[in-house]
Amino acid sequence: MNSKHKLCMIPGPVEFHEDVLTSMSTLATSHVSPSFIPIFGEVIELLRKIFCTEKSQPFVVSGSGTLGWDMVASNLIESDEDVLVLNTGYFGDSFADCLQTYGVKVTQVKADIGDRPSLEEIRQALTTKKFKAITITHVDTSTGVLSDIKAISTLVQQISPETLVIVDGVCSVGSEEIRMDEWNIDIVLTASQKALGVPPGLCILIASERAMNVFHNRETPIKSYYASWRNWLPIMNSYESRKGMYFATPPVQLIFALHTSLKQIISRPLELRFQQHKEVSNRIKNSLEELGLKFVPKNREIAANGMTAVYYPEGVKATDLLPKLAEQGVVIAGGLHKVIGPKYFRVGHMGISVTEPERKHIDNTIEALKGNLKDLGCKGDN
Amino acid sequence: MNSKHKLCMIPGPVEFHEDVLTSMSTLATSHVSPSFIPIFGEVIELLRKIFCTEKSQPFVVSGSGTLGWDMVASNLIESDEDVLVLNTGYFGDSFADCLQTYGVKVTQVKADIGDRPSLEEIRQALTTKKFKAITITHVDTSTGVLSDIKAISTLVQQISPETLVIVDGVCSVGSEEIRMDEWNIDIVLTASQKALGVPPGLCILIASERAMNVFHNRETPIKSYYASWRNWLPIMNSYESRKGMYFATPPVQLIFALHTSLKQIISRPLELRFQQHKEVSNRIKNSLEELGLKFVPKNREIAANGMTAVYYPEGVKATDLLPKLAEQGVVIAGGLHKVIGPKYFRVGHMGISVTEPERKHIDNTIEALKGNLKDLGCKGDN
Repeated sequence: MNSKHKLCMIPGPVEFHEDVLTSMSTLATSHVSPSFIPIFGEVIELLRKIFCTEKSQPFVVSGSGTLGWDMVASNLIESDEDVLVLNTGYFGDSFADCLQTYGVKVTQVKADIGDRPSLEEIRQALTTKKFKAITITHVDTSTGVLSDIKAISTLVQQISPETLVIVDGVCSVGSEEIRMDEWNIDIVLTASQKALGVPPGLCILIASERAMNVFHNRETPIKSYYASWRNWLPIMNSYESRKGMYFATPPVQLIFALHTSLKQIISRPLELRFQQHKEVSNRIKNSLEELGLKFVPKNREIAANGMTAVYYPEGVKATDLLPKLAEQGVVIAGGLHKVIGPKYFRVGHMGISVTEPERKHIDNTIEALKGNLKDLGCKGDN
Repeated sequence: MNSKHKLCMIPGPVEFHEDVLTSMSTLATSHVSPSFIPIFGEVIELLRKIFCTEKSQPFVVSGSGTLGWDMVASNLIESDEDVLVLNTGYFGDSFADCLQTYGVKVTQVKADIGDRPSLEEIRQALTTKKFKAITITHVDTSTGVLSDIKAISTLVQQISPETLVIVDGVCSVGSEEIRMDEWNIDIVLTASQKALGVPPGLCILIASERAMNVFHNRETPIKSYYASWRNWLPIMNSYESRKGMYFATPPVQLIFALHTSLKQIISRPLELRFQQHKEVSNRIKNSLEELGLKFVPKNREIAANGMTAVYYPEGVKATDLLPKLAEQGVVIAGGLHKVIGPKYFRVGHMGISVTEPERKHIDNTIEALKGNLKDLGCKGDN
């Protein structure tokens, strides 16, 4: 590691494994060459393992996580159909915007800042009309609030079993448990640069058999070209059967990097991975709590395990803390939420920073946070 | 270079400079960090130089070149408006498909395989109705046919000056001359993995002031979320003014790589670059002509300078030539055109393979092609 490198402890992009970066600089390789085709094919297979699903259909496309919203809106939902959006922050607002762009009728259950809709609120909303889908931001990167997708999905099965369960897992895949088949999740969409540990540039989406049937049986034309599964499905099928096929040039180097990272992730039990993320999250949150700080999520039970959103101490601003930490080699993020943006900061703790404690990323981050926050008047822990 | 590395001499991805690959493996960096913001800002400025324009608006977005079509269709054209598509191969068909997905009324002027629409045909088409835009595939990667965008744009100014001139430059930017301002071009869209010499994963589009005015004055809602300039324009403006801003996480490593490559490209006169691409193209085409082969473009005047599409000798198939060349370390591409796909092959000659002759990529490619084609019964040149 470059001695001048600053640890990237934001909620994505996260620190990348050396082997992942080596894959990023793979020499020029044709997208239909025998050295790339099986890599792409295996990526598709590995994704099913990551999402704990037997038969769901992965899509890996050049783009950011945001493109996954367009995929949902343009492939699954038809004009004037209703979608229930559970809103726990900035990304709920944006997902709703995206759906509305495609003519979808959106109903939101919007939690107060730092909270999440209760199961009772969701139950009530589900009974008001027939929803084609419900969307859940698993972890809203703007608030660090974690949604209970298992409980929500169970509720949907009870109240409105035809409603598709769609999870925005951009800030959760790889750091929070997701059991697609067991929990009856229809869509999980994510991006490469969070807990999957790959540089940004890949939109990753996985669709249940039921979702694919809804797609195949849609009655009106698909509303996007670049996001259209009609264009991408043959490509995914072809690479999975170890044949090249062209729709648009795949981002070869990023897919090599994703392959490297997925192989690393899958080489150890997923349960252990999620446990480690919980433990590290607790360590960081305990340290901040000991300093007297208040989290954005209203309690620890609904806080994400891959990131922490926390209010500055009274009278402290972003410019008092973030530049000093960066000078000391630790980069964290400011707030993103439209209402409380300047009042809080965010720390990412995902991927190799968590699973490889010997790197001391977490130790160094806690130490730097503690030192600086004490200088800014926070109480000590001893 | 890895001794087992096979030269990637297809019409994109092309061979990448070592410094570009080093940028690809940049350690984790926040998309709003002071080490990234000025890089992205400078990329936007450098693109204006590449496209010979003072005030046009660049967009650099995670995606493939195909996403550029969605940007055009969803931001510039409103439902039921007419667009004239000049078709010189596979990519004309696909651009038309994309436009139609967004409700655009498409009229095509379709050339025979290996030909391009004549100026007289284009003139006639332009007089039949009022077209919001005309699209031109500068180089159709499926046929290697080069369109004369300067002459077509001049014609459009004469016949239908309000019509936007839209150039699909995926396989031409960096290898063919494009003077956006001087030639009154409104849009050029491209991708990173061709003559710009960067791994695939970036959609690059540049829009004239006139095109941006058309966008700002549109009357109906924009039809995409991920491709919407309403979302991306504030981001481009913000990074150009050296401030970070968030819509979707930019592909940091690819943008570092693009920065490296653009700096290299701009460090030498663009005229020299285009001249080198012409000379190398002539060398390759002369060699193939001497072997008695016939090009897909009907004559050398309408053939691209960054790639060559050429028919196999009578009785020779892809499997007779391509695997042998690959064994010898040179990867070329098969055909892509729906009608003649199995009958021809394609060689890419762009970027550092052309501008840095000391690498001997072109020499090695010509030698390997000659040797194998002679073995397959082609006549020799001495």
